[in-house]
Amino acid sequence: MMTSYEKLLPLIEERINQYTRELPSSGLNDPIRYLMEFGGKRIRPAIALMACELFGGKISEALSASVALEVFHNFTLVHDDIMDQAPLRRGKTAVHIKWTTNSAILSGDVMSIHATQLICSSRQSWVHDVLSTFLKTAVEVCEGQQLDMDFEARTIVSHEEYIEMIRLKTAVLLACALKIGASIGGAGVEDQEKLYQFGENMGLAFQIKDDYLDVFGDHSKVGKQAGGDIVSNKKTFLSVSALELANDGQRQLWINLLHLDADHAKRKVEEVTQLYRTLGIDSLALEAVSLYSAKAFGALNELEVPEERKEGLLRFVESLANREK
Amino acid sequence: MMTSYEKLLPLIEERINQYTRELPSSGLNDPIRYLMEFGGKRIRPAIALMACELFGGKISEALSASVALEVFHNFTLVHDDIMDQAPLRRGKTAVHIKWTTNSAILSGDVMSIHATQLICSSRQSWVHDVLSTFLKTAVEVCEGQQLDMDFEARTIVSHEEYIEMIRLKTAVLLACALKIGASIGGAGVEDQEKLYQFGENMGLAFQIKDDYLDVFGDHSKVGKQAGGDIVSNKKTFLSVSALELANDGQRQLWINLLHLDADHAKRKVEEVTQLYRTLGIDSLALEAVSLYSAKAFGALNELEVPEERKEGLLRFVESLANREK
Repeated sequence: MMTSYEKLLPLIEERINQYTRELPSSGLNDPIRYLMEFGGKRIRPAIALMACELFGGKISEALSASVALEVFHNFTLVHDDIMDQAPLRRGKTAVHIKWTTNSAILSGDVMSIHATQLICSSRQSWVHDVLSTFLKTAVEVCEGQQLDMDFEARTIVSHEEYIEMIRLKTAVLLACALKIGASIGGAGVEDQEKLYQFGENMGLAFQIKDDYLDVFGDHSKVGKQAGGDIVSNKKTFLSVSALELANDGQRQLWINLLHLDADHAKRKVEEVTQLYRTLGIDSLALEAVSLYSAKAFGALNELEVPEERKEGLLRFVESLANREK
Repeated sequence: MMTSYEKLLPLIEERINQYTRELPSSGLNDPIRYLMEFGGKRIRPAIALMACELFGGKISEALSASVALEVFHNFTLVHDDIMDQAPLRRGKTAVHIKWTTNSAILSGDVMSIHATQLICSSRQSWVHDVLSTFLKTAVEVCEGQQLDMDFEARTIVSHEEYIEMIRLKTAVLLACALKIGASIGGAGVEDQEKLYQFGENMGLAFQIKDDYLDVFGDHSKVGKQAGGDIVSNKKTFLSVSALELANDGQRQLWINLLHLDADHAKRKVEEVTQLYRTLGIDSLALEAVSLYSAKAFGALNELEVPEERKEGLLRFVESLANREK
């Protein structure tokens, strides 16, 4: 019997609370507590625990390692928000604004170390492999953020380059969560690899859906402004695809729009959105979401565990992929 | 037969070169290469290897873990230089100036992960203990930097608070290097602890000597300005001791000097230095260096390994403690 997402979530929150409770109150730890107690969907721990159960592993054994992934993910958010000068995170004041940039750097640094400690808190035989997978992924996530920053300084980024960036920045940590969970659950190397592919492709689908929703989503339901990526000239699946498909006139229009400053944000979002529609980028994005989702489910299908065990993971991932906000 | 520092250094450099050679050229890795190829005394790897040999361990087995400590140390330098807005590091342009603050944040992040990977590159039985020691220390180093930042915002910091700050920020990593080396070399828990105490006290002595040399050292030989700590109102052993010993008039003079800006740097350094001499802070600092050195050597004395094995470590540490620049 597999544990549903709804039943996993309180277990994850409890383990996160244990982590934050153990941190003495200090300038270093208060931002960590603030951030970790925001809540959130806890996607990475949830899928790690589901992957563990797929192979008959115990939730309790994978709980600390699964929370390590959440702590690491939140570390990247703190540092990314400094780099992107983002004032808000999940609708609340970002750490570097609520405290200082220096605080955010240092609290992030220690979260990254805490994440590793959470994995090493077990003495089970899987620790070394799980840690290797985690550290390799952690480096890749940094590489992804570097590519993201590099792309900011460029006008043209190819479709392939963009996919590689989001693969590193977003998808590999989801893939890692599944692989680690599977490894703790006792999966063989091949099954771990299939779950990794499932996570990687799901991650690509999620990110492209995110890019789509930033422009075409229902913004009454979220704490973000519509078209925020357009205003900040962020490279997204939409923007790199548009630039590849645009004719000379459209490309010139695009470049003119890029240079519009914050005072013309509304006009910029409207005109770029119109350009996306003209070029059919909205459908293109949804097709890419379907493509990567199909690849993901293909990998999951190949996994030789009883089909009913896969249901919880499938349902959870589908609910994420089908979100409209 | 113990390997001398002079013979260890090329081995350490070779392992560092292997580490930097394996990093693909990228915006993420170029700052790492730049920083790691600066050279330097490589104190942390050197004492780790010496500690390993004390107990009959092989240099080759401890080499990666010893270099992990150097990589971690350099990660803290990159992030500290951002936080302190320091333009120079070892006389060369700091990473956040040569590249950008964002680059320095991210390259630092990945160095911290690389350090952990270097320890996990072994599959020996000591990995779990060594990693636990390293991660605990890594958190403490961040706590030390946080205290350092907290102290900047305060006028009065007690002697005890200052010692605790430099213990965390500087001493524990040296202590950790020795403990890790000893652990890899096969030392028992008690001997590891004695070497840890040796390193911790040595670290305190080094830092107080550093504070002393910033004001009273021979500045023709180093890439730093004389009294840099005075100009930036940094809390040092000298400044916290002076404030504790000053009478009301001296304290008022002190506070007036604190408010002098960069245009009056020369006068500020001269007058604060004079105040230190009047209060006997220079002798006090040297006495503290002697005290902590004596504690350190006391711990080393208690170590039950043949005396001749201790010589290399003793000689190396004495050369650092007796430096005049």
